[in-house]
Amino acid sequence: MKGLFITIEGMDGSGKTTQINLLKDFFEKQGKHVHVTREPGGTRISEAIREIILNIDYQEMDYITEALLYAASRAQHVAEYILPAIEKGDIVICDRFVDSSIVYQGMARGLGQEMVATINRFATRGLEPDVTFFLDLEHRQGMERKKNQQELDRLESEKEYFHQKVRDGYKQLAKDNQKRMIDVDAGQSIEEVHQSIIKALKQKAIIADKYNDEE
Amino acid sequence: MKGLFITIEGMDGSGKTTQINLLKDFFEKQGKHVHVTREPGGTRISEAIREIILNIDYQEMDYITEALLYAASRAQHVAEYILPAIEKGDIVICDRFVDSSIVYQGMARGLGQEMVATINRFATRGLEPDVTFFLDLEHRQGMERKKNQQELDRLESEKEYFHQKVRDGYKQLAKDNQKRMIDVDAGQSIEEVHQSIIKALKQKAIIADKYNDEE
Repeated sequence: MKGLFITIEGMDGSGKTTQINLLKDFFEKQGKHVHVTREPGGTRISEAIREIILNIDYQEMDYITEALLYAASRAQHVAEYILPAIEKGDIVICDRFVDSSIVYQGMARGLGQEMVATINRFATRGLEPDVTFFLDLEHRQGMERKKNQQELDRLESEKEYFHQKVRDGYKQLAKDNQKRMIDVDAGQSIEEVHQSIIKALKQKAIIADKYNDEE
Repeated sequence: MKGLFITIEGMDGSGKTTQINLLKDFFEKQGKHVHVTREPGGTRISEAIREIILNIDYQEMDYITEALLYAASRAQHVAEYILPAIEKGDIVICDRFVDSSIVYQGMARGLGQEMVATINRFATRGLEPDVTFFLDLEHRQGMERKKNQQELDRLESEKEYFHQKVRDGYKQLAKDNQKRMIDVDAGQSIEEVHQSIIKALKQKAIIADKYNDEE
């Protein structure tokens, strides 16, 4: 039996971690085996690469270097972690995936969608998520939520206009990939966002086919 | 004035470092400004990536991850070091470049030349060496030379048959790129190899056009 691969995308502070945990609990109540993971990261090699990518000292990092490092981290994550879990029939919920690279590097950095998509086709061996949730929130709202939480990393300290490009990029991507990608209003309450996600999974027949919903 | 970009390729132990230093001296005697660099490496970010690539503990490293890490290291090297030096009119001599990735990852690892070439076209922004020397030596001879020199790293400890594929790959590449790539018999004495390199530079009108050879 093939498992399920779900990715969660969105700006920092949009509530990805909270929603991932609620979704994990939901599936576990159905008796499913759930893996929660994140990008860049998920394996020790990917985490080592993550440390280079997010090192705030490396201000001189070239955008193409950055895009290739994300892809390298992802290649290891897919080969060593995600594919084996899905092939076992488990559920993998991943915080960020290729869409993040398309939006941040391809669109906001200006490398172009095609370059980033090509590199990532190699990295993922063509693996695509069964469904992707984009938690949409204005950047200012997201930053309010994260305030005092931790020191901002290199990406988070980028300027405001960059974040607007990211948000526009995600909206465009959601429009272009309606079959796979679902735009969720992350300005709602935590429970409302969760229910929007569950509802969408039912509408896409992802839950109904496989699970008895006991809510 | 545009500078000159020379790459040196070949198996470990084929004498690349020795020949690079002789070539550097040769050009400096002509009053040229020469930069000697190596891949993976050449900038602090590239060196950090190099540490991951060559870490002997990372036996689980996926071949696609490895290829993308080489490309990421190269992207930074090209953007931050090689291109600015060439644009200033200097000479850059680089120990390994894209050909190493094509041969090691594309051919010997079996990822395919096309995948590796595509990734590297992004990494280099299309930069190609003016001339490439392939120092050709049987693997066994190369290992004899390196013996006792240092602990073998992850790549050097690969099995014998892998090295045969690498050598065959280089020979094929030299055949396919005769305009740029020169096959040198590295079984000759140090001075003979050096003279073969100088002779080839003259034949290609790379020296004659720009320098008075005072030897």
